[in-house]
Amino acid sequence: MTLAVGEAATSLPVIEDRHHDHRKYPHGVAFMDGQYLPMSEAKVSVLDWGFLHSDATYDTVHVWDGRFFRLNLHLDRFFKGMEKLRMKLPYSRDEIEKILSTCVALSGHKSAYVEMICTRGGSPTFSRDPRQAENRFIAFAVPFGSVANKEQLERGLHIAISDTVRISPRSIDPAIKNYHWLDLVKGLFDAYDAGAETALIVDTNDNIAEGAGFNVFTVKDGILKTPGYSVLPGITRQSVFDLCTELHLSASAGDVNRDQLKAADEVFITSTAGGIMPVTKIDDAVIGNGKVGPVTRQLTDLYWKKHADPAWSTQIAYR
Amino acid sequence: MTLAVGEAATSLPVIEDRHHDHRKYPHGVAFMDGQYLPMSEAKVSVLDWGFLHSDATYDTVHVWDGRFFRLNLHLDRFFKGMEKLRMKLPYSRDEIEKILSTCVALSGHKSAYVEMICTRGGSPTFSRDPRQAENRFIAFAVPFGSVANKEQLERGLHIAISDTVRISPRSIDPAIKNYHWLDLVKGLFDAYDAGAETALIVDTNDNIAEGAGFNVFTVKDGILKTPGYSVLPGITRQSVFDLCTELHLSASAGDVNRDQLKAADEVFITSTAGGIMPVTKIDDAVIGNGKVGPVTRQLTDLYWKKHADPAWSTQIAYR
Repeated sequence: MTLAVGEAATSLPVIEDRHHDHRKYPHGVAFMDGQYLPMSEAKVSVLDWGFLHSDATYDTVHVWDGRFFRLNLHLDRFFKGMEKLRMKLPYSRDEIEKILSTCVALSGHKSAYVEMICTRGGSPTFSRDPRQAENRFIAFAVPFGSVANKEQLERGLHIAISDTVRISPRSIDPAIKNYHWLDLVKGLFDAYDAGAETALIVDTNDNIAEGAGFNVFTVKDGILKTPGYSVLPGITRQSVFDLCTELHLSASAGDVNRDQLKAADEVFITSTAGGIMPVTKIDDAVIGNGKVGPVTRQLTDLYWKKHADPAWSTQIAYR
Repeated sequence: MTLAVGEAATSLPVIEDRHHDHRKYPHGVAFMDGQYLPMSEAKVSVLDWGFLHSDATYDTVHVWDGRFFRLNLHLDRFFKGMEKLRMKLPYSRDEIEKILSTCVALSGHKSAYVEMICTRGGSPTFSRDPRQAENRFIAFAVPFGSVANKEQLERGLHIAISDTVRISPRSIDPAIKNYHWLDLVKGLFDAYDAGAETALIVDTNDNIAEGAGFNVFTVKDGILKTPGYSVLPGITRQSVFDLCTELHLSASAGDVNRDQLKAADEVFITSTAGGIMPVTKIDDAVIGNGKVGPVTRQLTDLYWKKHADPAWSTQIAYR
């Protein structure tokens, strides 16, 4: 600490050359400005509009057993988000795929959480005009993480519904994957206060929207439903639709209200961070018989099997 | 560039020790982790939830002629925001004031834009639970900037009203000063497309809300009005209320619709970044006679006079 508090007002501390960061970082590899770097070096300026205005889009793809899962869908969404935000990068889609693959290979992780980020960046002339910004690309690979831990995957998550309203599509297009999470974080604190493990928040019509990094599905009389409005079109959500087609199950997107959610036979959430994860309690309501349901199990099994299928996954060259 | 694109898949690039950053940074001084640093070192990890979830609050105070302007009001708002977000810092209010002052003194800037930031930080055990995060404080002082340049201050800004809806108070409490700006940035691009210089966006009822970093006031028949819903309670907005009291002018907060805005005798915007700034054109409508109006001028003059008043400002000890 070189903090000047308590020193005489006339004795200013020195300006040091380098920041000494004593935080711990997960093992992984990042790419920035043409360099591959340890995670401890993956930092953005506080002046980058990606931080200062959360003016950024991103995507996360996971690696399982050395293979990317549905990378093309994630790249599609990432490029669409950049286009909608009028951002441009000096890398082609093939180059970005290669960079992501290299981050994973250098990390050595066989199961990884891989993030690609485009921030607005900043203007080299310090203009306030976002059109004059140099957009910035960052990618990194860290160990795979899950919304639900092992115990929760076995017994099902306990979720609370918060009255917090997910940021409206009239404000931000939810198809642009973004870092505007203060509503979701508020929902999480509401859920913790209620003794639950995670939260769902609602849309502007008080129907269920989504949670902190996940979509939600109900199963009722063998038919699946997921909210269609005010949600990120998740890739795992899309995978559930695709698996349902294969299994001849009916699944659709549309309004799901609180009562319908609690009266479902089965409920599960979907996220790249964990896949398909069962929910067995919502607020004070036990879902179905309180155990992980058969449709959830069937979909989960098929979801993980697809991770070895070349139509759904891509081998990474580790050396 | 050490990018591996084009190289053989079996030859991985090296992981370098340090990031080489060739970006330009404004002259200034930052405080992080007990150190005072040049702006080029003021960086946060991409894994900090302040970036990854825009889970942060901040405030900006300006320095004019070597004096902080209404620092106490900014500190009040900053501490209230942290409390609402359930964040805690290991610094007292007095210590933060001293840190801000030291950043300015070390920078040498007599006119400065000074930002204090609290991010959620991250968990030392890599937990996903925000309650387990170590919150983080960052401060910096850079040269003073303004929404409007000299020419715009003389002739008045040209603003367009965008149909983009400001993030609703049902999603995020606007009294928590936050970095969720994608709606405001969308508004800016809409305004640029319409040939205007900056934007106002609307609230959920299609009344006027605010712009990218500023509030707006109308003057009609000598009476001032500013939107009361879905806006940041700006400190410069508060200063206008206080100046109006002193000048025996009537000013209140309430709904302002598009027609009322365009039919006003005078319009001005308020921001720490520039103070009170005139608006003389909105969409295709000329405001009043198209020149900066007398009430705007009177308030602007008194606003800048207050910068030398010890009741409104605090001297900085530069050495």
